[in-house]
Amino acid sequence: MTASIITIGDELLIGQVIDTNSAWMAQELSKHGIAVKRRVAVGDSWDDIWRALDEESLHSGIILITGGLGPTADDITKPLLCSYFGGKMVVNEQALANVTHIFENLYKKPVSPRNLKQAEVPDNCTVIMNQRGTAPGMWFEKNGKVFVSMPGVPHEMKGMMEHDVIPELCKKFQFPIITHRSLLTAGIGESALADLIQSWEENLPPHIKLAYLPNYGMVRLRLSSQGSDDAVVKETHQHFQELLHLVRDYLVTDRDEPIESFMGRLLQSRKETVCTAESCTGGFISHLLTSIPGASAYVEGGFVSYSYAAKESLLEIPNELLIEKGAVSEEVVRLMATHSRERLKTDYSIAVSGILGPDGGMPGKPVGTVWIAVASKSKMVSRCFHFRFDRARNTQLTAVNALNMLRLLIISPPSSA
Amino acid sequence: MTASIITIGDELLIGQVIDTNSAWMAQELSKHGIAVKRRVAVGDSWDDIWRALDEESLHSGIILITGGLGPTADDITKPLLCSYFGGKMVVNEQALANVTHIFENLYKKPVSPRNLKQAEVPDNCTVIMNQRGTAPGMWFEKNGKVFVSMPGVPHEMKGMMEHDVIPELCKKFQFPIITHRSLLTAGIGESALADLIQSWEENLPPHIKLAYLPNYGMVRLRLSSQGSDDAVVKETHQHFQELLHLVRDYLVTDRDEPIESFMGRLLQSRKETVCTAESCTGGFISHLLTSIPGASAYVEGGFVSYSYAAKESLLEIPNELLIEKGAVSEEVVRLMATHSRERLKTDYSIAVSGILGPDGGMPGKPVGTVWIAVASKSKMVSRCFHFRFDRARNTQLTAVNALNMLRLLIISPPSSA
Repeated sequence: MTASIITIGDELLIGQVIDTNSAWMAQELSKHGIAVKRRVAVGDSWDDIWRALDEESLHSGIILITGGLGPTADDITKPLLCSYFGGKMVVNEQALANVTHIFENLYKKPVSPRNLKQAEVPDNCTVIMNQRGTAPGMWFEKNGKVFVSMPGVPHEMKGMMEHDVIPELCKKFQFPIITHRSLLTAGIGESALADLIQSWEENLPPHIKLAYLPNYGMVRLRLSSQGSDDAVVKETHQHFQELLHLVRDYLVTDRDEPIESFMGRLLQSRKETVCTAESCTGGFISHLLTSIPGASAYVEGGFVSYSYAAKESLLEIPNELLIEKGAVSEEVVRLMATHSRERLKTDYSIAVSGILGPDGGMPGKPVGTVWIAVASKSKMVSRCFHFRFDRARNTQLTAVNALNMLRLLIISPPSSA
Repeated sequence: MTASIITIGDELLIGQVIDTNSAWMAQELSKHGIAVKRRVAVGDSWDDIWRALDEESLHSGIILITGGLGPTADDITKPLLCSYFGGKMVVNEQALANVTHIFENLYKKPVSPRNLKQAEVPDNCTVIMNQRGTAPGMWFEKNGKVFVSMPGVPHEMKGMMEHDVIPELCKKFQFPIITHRSLLTAGIGESALADLIQSWEENLPPHIKLAYLPNYGMVRLRLSSQGSDDAVVKETHQHFQELLHLVRDYLVTDRDEPIESFMGRLLQSRKETVCTAESCTGGFISHLLTSIPGASAYVEGGFVSYSYAAKESLLEIPNELLIEKGAVSEEVVRLMATHSRERLKTDYSIAVSGILGPDGGMPGKPVGTVWIAVASKSKMVSRCFHFRFDRARNTQLTAVNALNMLRLLIISPPSSA
């Protein structure tokens, strides 16, 4: 019993929005042992949606549909589903009460006729209440297959998935246990990693799969197995332990988490604090660190010293040094690290200054040149990088490399610093 | 002649990565008049990939495939394509030279046998050179349909699409002109907007489509038309002008751009500067502002005053005020706006302090409470928001609302402030 996800909306086919719903849904389904077989995006076209329903019901027993349930004229999903499953539209009293409640209590506006229409549903579906918006979800069954239609607004869809759809699916079907174990490495490429673990990989049993997921200069390795008994879970765990040992020199974290999450746990466990002094990344490193709940335990604050003047006034970088060496220089970035740490009285600091593009390159300092320094009370490490990508990717690469440099500084034995 | 996009990888089906490739590809194709009909994601499974190729060639004449071309054992796309199109694997000399060149000159490492295998391609395809990585792209033709396989690494795929795939497709086929015009509104919901423009929308000709794209408290409206002559373009333009007039009170920008990009153009045209003082958003607003190329013309810098101590030492917020009113208060956020602007000598400042969740709520200040202040030399506006979502979404909502408040402060006539 596998699932297909159908997302509906012209905006997905002209690339105006990135589909984050499908990834979230797949993750949640996977946790509950529901394997996603396919994800399909189609436009707001009657024929295309109809054909997608036909096709996906050949592939999967569970078809989850998002999008196309809004109150505006471009949304055709609801009448289409009504027709596809041979029902007629009726007003659902509970959905009507929900629309009225939301307008009166949350939006504090009168309900328009357009919004009242959201309470109309096909009479052959089970209505799923939307606790975060006005469009109800709909659960249909046909030939033993389940079709669920949900709004495309991410937090509305998430509410329905968590509170209704997944629990109902788990009641209705028996799913296998799927086990995923992931680890994250830094400082080694995909091919070198593959060479390093080749003989281990060749000896993996066929029901345990390994995937390489390279991203921003790091490589995530994921082991996946499917099985309905504990033996498979234990077996996967054992292979994962062997893998951890093989990659130990490059290991960032043995969890499925980004490096900023690992850094948060590391700092919190050591009861230590960090601050940032960012030029080219403009606050992105600080944003990553504070995106983790509970970051106030270890993030003190930071500086965005984007201009020369800001570097001088916020971080006391001497004007002569900026003139002589340039803002993108080892001397400046080390001073940024020192002064920010002193100023905010933290255990560690991260400082970056670089040229992320597309413009701003100069002789000897092409676009992509970035200096990073990380410091503790007794140690300082600085390093120059040359990134070759676009502004967004260079920003990401700078941030993860800076966090990884701090990680290495923290975990390295005192003598080797 | 429409296109289908097939993305390959188990990681897409367990939601471990978000598929940003498809959106980018759809956007580029759309610009060149190539309509994307479907996007499909399948796992690293021989049968599923094979069936996706069969199915999509019924839907579309152009099938673009990404993923599954890496050097590691989980990548099966290349042998599958070889078999699907009935070829045999041969070493491609140009691809071999590319792999060798990249290892010797960029990675400065010896080429491993595993990487040399990347130069092997089916003998019945046209090889597309990869200028940013080792895996070559492959162009197949069968029954008048085009199949192109590209790596899943975003910047490698982008390079191939821009330099080879799109130009070749435009040479081979004649595409219609597709016109999109988008605008962004703030301060009005999707339904109210629909009511406001209802009679205009009802009078749209059938070949011009309107889409509502709500996102983070703003709504984007998009007009799309298809036609091979200038008349349709002109007609779309005229309807767009009418729409602009109807929504003028809520209009942020008449381009397809995020608010931070509009703010950049606004500030740059006025030769004015901005700084930030962020608590709960931890640098995210500053990151958004500096994510726009050329931001150094108007972003001076900013403060991340995450802790009480940082608020005191960086922004001179009196400890007594923090104790008396709390960090999340109108008084504190106004002082943050004033002091950051004075400190960095900018024309404007943005200051935020709030509780984004999941924890940290307190009596009278539940999770989601956010104070925002924006200031100029002569004006200051502050406002309290109550967001109801998760940490990431609350961060986004805080940032776009803060930028919108600054926009309104800048464009409002002096008397109304």
